[in-house]
Amino acid sequence: MRIDILSLFPSMFDGFLNTSIIKRAIDASLVEVHIHDFREYSLNKHKKVDDYPYGGGQGMVLACQPIIDCLKDVVSDESFVILMSPQGQTLKQSLSVELSCYKHLVIICGHYEGFDERIRDYVDMELSIGDYVLTGGELSSMVVCDSIIRLIDGSIREESHEDDSFSHGLLEYPQYTRPFEYDGNEVPEVLLSGHHENIRKWRLKQSLLKTYRKRPDLLENREFTQEEIEILEEIKNNH
Amino acid sequence: MRIDILSLFPSMFDGFLNTSIIKRAIDASLVEVHIHDFREYSLNKHKKVDDYPYGGGQGMVLACQPIIDCLKDVVSDESFVILMSPQGQTLKQSLSVELSCYKHLVIICGHYEGFDERIRDYVDMELSIGDYVLTGGELSSMVVCDSIIRLIDGSIREESHEDDSFSHGLLEYPQYTRPFEYDGNEVPEVLLSGHHENIRKWRLKQSLLKTYRKRPDLLENREFTQEEIEILEEIKNNH
Repeated sequence: MRIDILSLFPSMFDGFLNTSIIKRAIDASLVEVHIHDFREYSLNKHKKVDDYPYGGGQGMVLACQPIIDCLKDVVSDESFVILMSPQGQTLKQSLSVELSCYKHLVIICGHYEGFDERIRDYVDMELSIGDYVLTGGELSSMVVCDSIIRLIDGSIREESHEDDSFSHGLLEYPQYTRPFEYDGNEVPEVLLSGHHENIRKWRLKQSLLKTYRKRPDLLENREFTQEEIEILEEIKNNH
Repeated sequence: MRIDILSLFPSMFDGFLNTSIIKRAIDASLVEVHIHDFREYSLNKHKKVDDYPYGGGQGMVLACQPIIDCLKDVVSDESFVILMSPQGQTLKQSLSVELSCYKHLVIICGHYEGFDERIRDYVDMELSIGDYVLTGGELSSMVVCDSIIRLIDGSIREESHEDDSFSHGLLEYPQYTRPFEYDGNEVPEVLLSGHHENIRKWRLKQSLLKTYRKRPDLLENREFTQEEIEILEEIKNNH
């Protein structure tokens, strides 16, 4: 997979690209990530990339020319172009899975300001990471990359995905590690029993319980196994 | 405001802290941000911070000791402690506004792995930025900081908030800047009219129209002015 990111602040990506799973995926040639400063494409002699809004109002607006010219330099027939924008559809794990199947993603980041509306004609998808306002699309684009890259075969061990929160549509069960007692709090007995089936059942119940308490919305459109249905009945009867 | 972040990857924050609005807010002493590597607090001779999960299973679990000892070094009576976790409540703009009123925030980031469940006893809030899985809490914590810091008085011009998507519960209206024509696409006439009232009405209608088309969920719990109600009626009648 190849990802090209268009941004006015390429240095914001340094820490991200040089850390852990992302660095490993790049080093292993599982993904190439290229950052482009679209200011370099500005035809303005001062390399300006924004201008006042037509119709008046506060703030500046990112102009078409630098972004579109940079985009034209980067896209091919295989590219899927994403504009990071609070107006986009909200990222969800299922969308990350879809996006991880593309050969080439191009991601456009704004900063502070809005985009000239006409830039939207050149993109395949507008994407937001949540209902909050950020100073720019840089962090959002890193969030998108991170969620996608870790799904590429070989990035992390397959099994590590299996217990992820959201992967099964449930929150993860409680985890414990040494010491057995910390600050008066002990690890639940069952986890020391060595009885695999009891441990599996306990974890499933805890997962369902956590999801029921903290994120009942996740249970709404999920399909359940017979075992899960019985545990949920029990949980509901006790509350 | 002061923000302390506990992380195993302090260098991931470099680009973020040295860019734009965040750097300006730090330079203007509006906010102090301190990154702590909780590995330094590990009492293990190899500075290990994780261990195998009780009860078996894939992956490692972050242990209590390094995180809690680091936390104890950092918190005071005024601190509000946040654990970045996919199990937390989902960040929204209204929550960012609340969080921007605290004097001291402490944010704990995990990476790859889960936390020992007992760490949850030491935090005031678990926070997620969305329903997707990331390799760690670092990017999420930056997203939280970014959304908060830009709300602190003096960080950005007051007026810049006013038209933010979500600030009024609506998506932003289309913006245009020069040139008047790009690739055959012209700026809407009304924006060149100089007629402020018509421009205001056009923008309000476009805002409502965008929200109605792209994010109708945002309209559900919002209170409307009489003018907005009339425009919405008109929009609904035309669709």
